[in-house]
Amino acid sequence: MARVTTVAELVAELRARIAEASDLGQAAAVLGWDQETMMPPKGAMFRATQQAALAGVIHERFTQPRVGELLSALEAPDTWTQLSDLDRAIVRVNRRDYDRATKLPAALVRDLAIATTEGVESWRKAREESRFDRFAPNLRRIVDLKRQEAGYIGSGASPYDALLDEYEPGMTAAQLQPIFVNLRQETVSLLDRIDRSGKPLDRTVLQQEYATPKQLAFTEVVLRKMGFDFEAGRQDLSTHPFTTNFGPTDVRITTRVDEHELGMALYGSIHEGGHALYEQGIPLELARTGLGNGSSLGTHESQSRLWENFIGRSEMFWTWALPLLRQEFPVQVANASPERMTAAVNQVERSYIRVEADEVTYNLHIILRFEIERRLIDGEIQVDELPSVWNEMMGQYLGLTPPNDRLGVLQDTHWASGLIGYFPTYSLGNIYAAQLWAALHRDIPDLDARISRGEFAVVLDWLRQRIFRYGRSLDGADIVERATGEAPNATYLVEYLNRKYGALYGF
Amino acid sequence: MARVTTVAELVAELRARIAEASDLGQAAAVLGWDQETMMPPKGAMFRATQQAALAGVIHERFTQPRVGELLSALEAPDTWTQLSDLDRAIVRVNRRDYDRATKLPAALVRDLAIATTEGVESWRKAREESRFDRFAPNLRRIVDLKRQEAGYIGSGASPYDALLDEYEPGMTAAQLQPIFVNLRQETVSLLDRIDRSGKPLDRTVLQQEYATPKQLAFTEVVLRKMGFDFEAGRQDLSTHPFTTNFGPTDVRITTRVDEHELGMALYGSIHEGGHALYEQGIPLELARTGLGNGSSLGTHESQSRLWENFIGRSEMFWTWALPLLRQEFPVQVANASPERMTAAVNQVERSYIRVEADEVTYNLHIILRFEIERRLIDGEIQVDELPSVWNEMMGQYLGLTPPNDRLGVLQDTHWASGLIGYFPTYSLGNIYAAQLWAALHRDIPDLDARISRGEFAVVLDWLRQRIFRYGRSLDGADIVERATGEAPNATYLVEYLNRKYGALYGF
Repeated sequence: MARVTTVAELVAELRARIAEASDLGQAAAVLGWDQETMMPPKGAMFRATQQAALAGVIHERFTQPRVGELLSALEAPDTWTQLSDLDRAIVRVNRRDYDRATKLPAALVRDLAIATTEGVESWRKAREESRFDRFAPNLRRIVDLKRQEAGYIGSGASPYDALLDEYEPGMTAAQLQPIFVNLRQETVSLLDRIDRSGKPLDRTVLQQEYATPKQLAFTEVVLRKMGFDFEAGRQDLSTHPFTTNFGPTDVRITTRVDEHELGMALYGSIHEGGHALYEQGIPLELARTGLGNGSSLGTHESQSRLWENFIGRSEMFWTWALPLLRQEFPVQVANASPERMTAAVNQVERSYIRVEADEVTYNLHIILRFEIERRLIDGEIQVDELPSVWNEMMGQYLGLTPPNDRLGVLQDTHWASGLIGYFPTYSLGNIYAAQLWAALHRDIPDLDARISRGEFAVVLDWLRQRIFRYGRSLDGADIVERATGEAPNATYLVEYLNRKYGALYGF
Repeated sequence: MARVTTVAELVAELRARIAEASDLGQAAAVLGWDQETMMPPKGAMFRATQQAALAGVIHERFTQPRVGELLSALEAPDTWTQLSDLDRAIVRVNRRDYDRATKLPAALVRDLAIATTEGVESWRKAREESRFDRFAPNLRRIVDLKRQEAGYIGSGASPYDALLDEYEPGMTAAQLQPIFVNLRQETVSLLDRIDRSGKPLDRTVLQQEYATPKQLAFTEVVLRKMGFDFEAGRQDLSTHPFTTNFGPTDVRITTRVDEHELGMALYGSIHEGGHALYEQGIPLELARTGLGNGSSLGTHESQSRLWENFIGRSEMFWTWALPLLRQEFPVQVANASPERMTAAVNQVERSYIRVEADEVTYNLHIILRFEIERRLIDGEIQVDELPSVWNEMMGQYLGLTPPNDRLGVLQDTHWASGLIGYFPTYSLGNIYAAQLWAALHRDIPDLDARISRGEFAVVLDWLRQRIFRYGRSLDGADIVERATGEAPNATYLVEYLNRKYGALYGF
């Protein structure tokens, strides 16, 4: 007699399959971390095939038809009603991931892998020579394949939305556009006022000899105070700072040190520390379910920016931190004050390169990229036009004309890597962060005083309750709306920037 | 019309499948290394399931029936004749691994995993309390399961031989026994002469304050001179030193440091360095074929012991090394001479604990364990008798009676972990090393003078040609016989020990 499978059994089987794929994904993340931090140079020779073998197995496991069958069975109305909230979230999020993983034909996945591998290689050379025309054929191919990808994935959505959805689930270009227009206009106007103030901020206190071991020791003091759990994570060095994790109890960040510039290591560590607190704060019960990570790139970036900019670049922060910094570097900061440190780390400058941009101009770099990539995917502009479109928009947004493509359209690796729809999440992170910052102040009236005393636990606790607890069970914008009572909007970021830089530049 | 599969296609498919399993195995090794060296404490919570998921996938991949079909097709006489020597070796070694992996019923594998996990836990507690009776039920279960394992694997071999074959392919207890009897008798007699000499060697030079960073710097100087390629490997710290690798271009060793004892870090590093040179020396063409590692535990241990004892604990070594050590520790070794350093690192002492034993008594500890585990598996003695058998043999071999089981039968984790047939490979390593050492001297007449000048490259080159080049394509004993012209025998080890310790103790 055939036994009827119970709902509990279906859930258990789905969760076991997802757990296995998740375990294997975290194993791959360990290899990725090792590659960037520990691997000796010649180890690269075999690491690629090790990673490829793992990636193949993970894909195979997660896309087994049985996973689809289980999802469908659990989505059936009379089954669905019997599911717990957690299991519904597991089904919903894994359905999205499963569809994304299974909708693309294997040939397209392979073509994209080849095109982006070749694309990065071509981009690297083109950037060195500052010749966009050398990279253009590769980018044309990538854009073509990404449009195909969007076609397979999108269900009614515009091609660009289908791509954006991978990084910021639920978000659309139509939602972003008015927010970004507002932010751009306000930022351009703020930049003009900063220029007219004629007041350059003095950075020289940062530009002295700061020994690496002491800089690293100081970053650890700050990270501990932020609440980073070194029993459940570690910090190492790498060329480019990043955060990765293998479950919420093993979250690893990296930083990099410039012996002649204090800011690089400190703000690198605080930024990645913000990402890391998010991952360390994901509830254990979400681990290995497909929900056990930060919700979206935007929410993740809101955490890193909140700690790096809103807290780390504030006078409150330096009121607490300067005495501790003085213990490590008594000579270098002998005459510094919290005011002077704050001014030094907040200099605003119109510049060509996004990754070196300050808190104010950064969003202009992002909005420019968003506008360009959206129009590119929607077919409004062609790859060959990119340098001229780029330079024209740089003029409009930042009042600068890049002298060459190396300092212009060729500066970022994202498009060469096939990351289209990724850029807007950086500014979304700033927008979310400002909304959270305002809500934090509403909920904790003496927040500034507390931060001045280094009482960061109050911030972390709030974030745990309002953001971390959901893991991926809610979309980014929904989490922010629940935490702040408002849908994503640039109002709070604009207010924050105007107030902060008005004070710094005296207008 | 059905196309006939060519031999080349069969070989390519087999090699692709083995390469994938090998890649995944190396990914698992990265996780293992990370766990022992880098993982924060709480990371353990999810690492076990990550490793289990990987182990499951590796087993599944390697034991697919298609692998068996391919092996059988290539073993067929008219196919076999068309294979290159390399491909024949690949088929031969992977057949052995495949049979070992597929012959055991899944239930037995699972029972063994449970029994040894519980066994290690039970052993740990029993050792703490020094109560063998607490561990005896677990060991009975493990011995029972290992006998079953031997029954599934062995084809005519004695049960013990089937187990030994996993660690030292091709070796048998019957081959080992006369060699070990000879070595035991000669060692017991040498120990008596050392005792009668009445000369204690002075270790005090080692027992001073040696700062950790300088000790580590010194181990790196020695490792570099041995030929360890830091571009294809690294050294870190761990509780117990070990060597692992993810292909021949990423070989990692660990060491441990005692700030008040110079020998621990130095000889830990040289020992693991010997293992590492072997793995770094495996030809690239053997990588990802199943042949790309050292041949057996015995050959591996021959490399670590050759560098650690035959070279590292010689006066030649100290003639070269002492001036370099003096650069790091000018005060501590101000009055030391190469003679005095050599005496200090070669003190012989009858003692209870294997891992602390010196070069002379070490083999007695091993031969005792070999005799006991062989008789246990062959049913000649029972688990309950182990403490009394152990203590009696300790009396016969070392003239000592352990005061408790903690210092006796409970000291090692091997049996609790299911590692039966593993112990003899330690002494086999010493035996092989002595044979290689004699052959090295025959081939390089001025070897000692060269070592005194730190010209270790001549040793490494010889080992590359005679040992490393084969990978796993030949069995350990066959490699040693080709390199030295003689089957494994204890003659050279006995001669070496008698000469070295006769000189040190003055008889």
